[in-house]
Amino acid sequence: MYGFNGKILRVDLSKHEYTVVEPVADFYRKYLGGRNFGLYFLLKETEPGFEPLGPDNILVFSTGPATGAPLAGFSRHSVVAKSPLTGGFGEAEAGGFFAPELRFAGFDAIVIKGTSPNPVYLWIQDGKTEIRDASNIWGLKTKETQEAIREEAGDPLVRIALIGPAGENQVKYACIINELHYVNGRSGLGAVMGSKKLKAIAVRGHGKPQYKSPQKIRGFAKWFSENWKKNSSTVFRSKYGTAGSVLPLNQDGLLPTRNFIKGTFEYAEQISGEKIHDTILVNTHGCYACPIRCKLSVKAENPYETDPIYGGPEYETIGAFGSLCEVDNINAISYANQQCNAYGLDTISTGCCIAFAMECIEENILTTKETNGLNIRFGNADAMVKLVEMIAYRKGIGDLLAEGVRKAAEKIGKNAEQFAIHVKGKELPMHEPRGKPGVGVEYALSASGADHMQAAHDPAFKTSVEKVNPLGILEPVDRLSLGDEKVRLVKYLERWWLLLDILDVCKFTILPHGCGVFTINQIPEIINAATGWDTSLQELLLAADRSINMARLFNQREGLTEKEDTLPARFFKPLQTGPRKGSKIKENQLKKAVKKYYQISGWTPQGKPEKTTLHKLYLDEFIET
Amino acid sequence: MYGFNGKILRVDLSKHEYTVVEPVADFYRKYLGGRNFGLYFLLKETEPGFEPLGPDNILVFSTGPATGAPLAGFSRHSVVAKSPLTGGFGEAEAGGFFAPELRFAGFDAIVIKGTSPNPVYLWIQDGKTEIRDASNIWGLKTKETQEAIREEAGDPLVRIALIGPAGENQVKYACIINELHYVNGRSGLGAVMGSKKLKAIAVRGHGKPQYKSPQKIRGFAKWFSENWKKNSSTVFRSKYGTAGSVLPLNQDGLLPTRNFIKGTFEYAEQISGEKIHDTILVNTHGCYACPIRCKLSVKAENPYETDPIYGGPEYETIGAFGSLCEVDNINAISYANQQCNAYGLDTISTGCCIAFAMECIEENILTTKETNGLNIRFGNADAMVKLVEMIAYRKGIGDLLAEGVRKAAEKIGKNAEQFAIHVKGKELPMHEPRGKPGVGVEYALSASGADHMQAAHDPAFKTSVEKVNPLGILEPVDRLSLGDEKVRLVKYLERWWLLLDILDVCKFTILPHGCGVFTINQIPEIINAATGWDTSLQELLLAADRSINMARLFNQREGLTEKEDTLPARFFKPLQTGPRKGSKIKENQLKKAVKKYYQISGWTPQGKPEKTTLHKLYLDEFIET
Repeated sequence: MYGFNGKILRVDLSKHEYTVVEPVADFYRKYLGGRNFGLYFLLKETEPGFEPLGPDNILVFSTGPATGAPLAGFSRHSVVAKSPLTGGFGEAEAGGFFAPELRFAGFDAIVIKGTSPNPVYLWIQDGKTEIRDASNIWGLKTKETQEAIREEAGDPLVRIALIGPAGENQVKYACIINELHYVNGRSGLGAVMGSKKLKAIAVRGHGKPQYKSPQKIRGFAKWFSENWKKNSSTVFRSKYGTAGSVLPLNQDGLLPTRNFIKGTFEYAEQISGEKIHDTILVNTHGCYACPIRCKLSVKAENPYETDPIYGGPEYETIGAFGSLCEVDNINAISYANQQCNAYGLDTISTGCCIAFAMECIEENILTTKETNGLNIRFGNADAMVKLVEMIAYRKGIGDLLAEGVRKAAEKIGKNAEQFAIHVKGKELPMHEPRGKPGVGVEYALSASGADHMQAAHDPAFKTSVEKVNPLGILEPVDRLSLGDEKVRLVKYLERWWLLLDILDVCKFTILPHGCGVFTINQIPEIINAATGWDTSLQELLLAADRSINMARLFNQREGLTEKEDTLPARFFKPLQTGPRKGSKIKENQLKKAVKKYYQISGWTPQGKPEKTTLHKLYLDEFIET
Repeated sequence: MYGFNGKILRVDLSKHEYTVVEPVADFYRKYLGGRNFGLYFLLKETEPGFEPLGPDNILVFSTGPATGAPLAGFSRHSVVAKSPLTGGFGEAEAGGFFAPELRFAGFDAIVIKGTSPNPVYLWIQDGKTEIRDASNIWGLKTKETQEAIREEAGDPLVRIALIGPAGENQVKYACIINELHYVNGRSGLGAVMGSKKLKAIAVRGHGKPQYKSPQKIRGFAKWFSENWKKNSSTVFRSKYGTAGSVLPLNQDGLLPTRNFIKGTFEYAEQISGEKIHDTILVNTHGCYACPIRCKLSVKAENPYETDPIYGGPEYETIGAFGSLCEVDNINAISYANQQCNAYGLDTISTGCCIAFAMECIEENILTTKETNGLNIRFGNADAMVKLVEMIAYRKGIGDLLAEGVRKAAEKIGKNAEQFAIHVKGKELPMHEPRGKPGVGVEYALSASGADHMQAAHDPAFKTSVEKVNPLGILEPVDRLSLGDEKVRLVKYLERWWLLLDILDVCKFTILPHGCGVFTINQIPEIINAATGWDTSLQELLLAADRSINMARLFNQREGLTEKEDTLPARFFKPLQTGPRKGSKIKENQLKKAVKKYYQISGWTPQGKPEKTTLHKLYLDEFIET
């Protein structure tokens, strides 16, 4: 088999046993990889209504057809499980070095079920697996865990996906992390790992994937390294990381501020990529085989001293801990970021939970009595930083916030849900739907809750999205439109963005849509060079359709209804500051857009995939009888 | 502009005026070419219920993005109009030399409306147009017409699409022909041309289309010439033409015989491609730039003397005049073929009309009184040959048969419609639905009536269709299935076959699906090399979806209903001979398949395209308000 290894590792932690399965080639070609593998096992091997933090949840680490090829962006892996945060399909992708190493070690995916009686970690080396005791590292933060495992192995090149105390404590939005700053952040998959008493997966491989046309793969690598600097947005990202987005978004009135009440932050300059670059930046680094190096490492000084080993804050993190909490201190933000990486917390959800608490305090729904004396007001960097640790260890009010804003608001009562900014229980990323309704539609409809990596960001920095002909998009669409033409655009783009997740490919090596980065048509060529298939964009996009429908089926099976395909009420009210002051999402327009999306997807008016739609996609086995 | 010239010639024959329009590049990329251009003008510029043989019909000759490139198979053109035979969308493709010459002359398409008061022909040379008097050639047969025009031009390389007496006499299935044996056969488009008093379109061009990457185009040409002989079915076709299909189909019990009563013909050997090869074959020849040369030229002797200039019979022609009429004389068949080419008649419809008359005689529904003394019994080669001329000139019973089987049966009454084998008024090609129900589904649903070039032939020669992954087909389907999986297969294949028509590309240089011929993935590459686009298979197939929906809209506008989406009742009864004796199409299964097809196409249960479907395809301008 070319491209893939043809081997999937299955682990049953309850029984402490593992097996290696070799799926037929058709399985790989039909599902491609990434989240689709996870969806397949969730749909096939779980019963409706199972507990996400119990032994029946299935946690799947998976890669794509060309993962590990020495190509910029082909180093990602997906993690999928039922989300403890949303109760539905949970997923998260990460870059780094874990995915290539897993391939070098002989596996394409790891499927984990059961719950270990004692803390363990998986040790995988060159096709061999061990379930090792982790009692001595249980409770350690991520850096110490990584060091301990590497020390035990006597090999500094072991690549480890692991959880911190937050995952162990089943914080509902605990993350999984590799190399201390590449993060499967969202959906609380770290809590699932924690519930299974699985501290880490450590992999080491000396094999090399077999490609059908190694020469073509090398050709693409050479092409990318010679051309990527022609793309100005990629070069910009290479210098400032995603943190470079702070200023343009603020200027555009779309920097989520004060728990999404406002769209501009007075001190945006202070928390910008440029500020980091000029003050605390130590160096940049990147994923396996990627020359862009869009990750920052920062070193801040007292009182928020940070260790560059934990990287530096992404745009999302700066938004969540900075403008959303109205904290103007980039050192504090960087420290909060480090704490999240050390405890294993998703920075987006963590920041959102803290901003939620801040608004509750401001509105007198929470008092200092309930916050253990902490004066969690907007702008209070110290309180914010303290809260991160309290959440990770579920201390005091941290225990409440560890449940996510939806559940916390339920517990608080007093109409606190009006400040709980989430979709399907997942806290919103730092993209303001009132300024890009396409993202709003996607937030409302993404199977895993509010997710900013699923579509229609193009309108963010332009008056209108350009045509993207090879995908079938023929007309530019106004960024502020929420009509049928926007739904159509979202649908076309969504398939493409999802495909990149399924292939476990980095969007940053492709999506700037300009010179120098991989083009839409190069992607099937790369996949074919790796696998020896004769696939086409047409065939690949059908796997994205499969993904959308499988995730929908799973959510419906688990009780999510169309009522959850919406946005928080806050976005139906006008933005309060900045150049987009007054912008809002019209609720009835959004409802209409959601219905239109159902229709264009071949779903019933209740949002259920039609049998014919599933049949067309060769998903007959998932049709309920 | 690369690929296309960017110019369309518009002619109003009523006013004897013409204009050149230069559509925006978006028009070309959205509709691609071929039948889609015709559909666009029919939908935009005609009023519901117009007379197909009146001045309001629009007759469109069109080409594709890479037509005229020196590549095997890229030499075809489409002709589209409202069909006088079906009352709905009419289309026919042909190869030869006309299409490349039109491109060399500077045009991508010709759009003709109105009716000339006097016979005319169009003269087009290097971007210049004349409407020339054709009084002196009106009434001439095709060969004489071609000679006269070339003589008048003093140029033997003028390429001419023309009609014979049958078109002038508005025989409902008159054809348009170039080089005397490349035929836009079906749908009665020759009658439309005749009704407009347009005898011919003569083109001469010395220009060369501009390609974005001439080197890549040359590369593809070189690749094809070096590789096509590796494909055994192509080599077979190169030797025997399509006539080579007679024996395999007969052996399989699927050679339409005795007006579709039987599936085997006792004397199949006598009318086979092999028989032609061993007796009357003079040479083979091919379309512009094609090395396959799948066209035969034959020279038969008295009493059925033929001139090789008219080519030789295709498989369809042998079926229609041979087994369908139970005529076992290949010379008589070849002569009937020549007469059709000389008078300008579609051989399929002509043969079917004669077989219909034969069955009516056998069943005493017609008598020799009504047939002018002709004893038109099955097997009577002399009578058959005479009928061809009578139809062309509408003499005696020929006048009745010139209307096509549907209308002839109506006029005859006496339940004659049970012998009228047609869909939507168009006579059936020589493929037996009872042995390949996929073709049956396509017959029932093709917008232009029974058409054998729209999908799902693969099952004809195999136990099951192979997977065709790049199109999205993941599973083989049993050839005899008529279930949901067959409808899905038809749908996927239909888009691809239609795309090849829209691109005006020959299916024989691609469809054998094996080594040596152009692959599915090479097609977008060739289009990109010609046009400079960045198109993908995904985008191209959307143009096929547009085509299917536009044709459906046109038919519905013209009053065709879902009742016509069916097959003749004969196929609901068992085949009477051969290895497939007893096979039949179950009527309720077919009905179910048609409904499933509507559903999978995004149409209402009445077969009407949903607004959302049209919107998704950027066909909003055709949504009825």
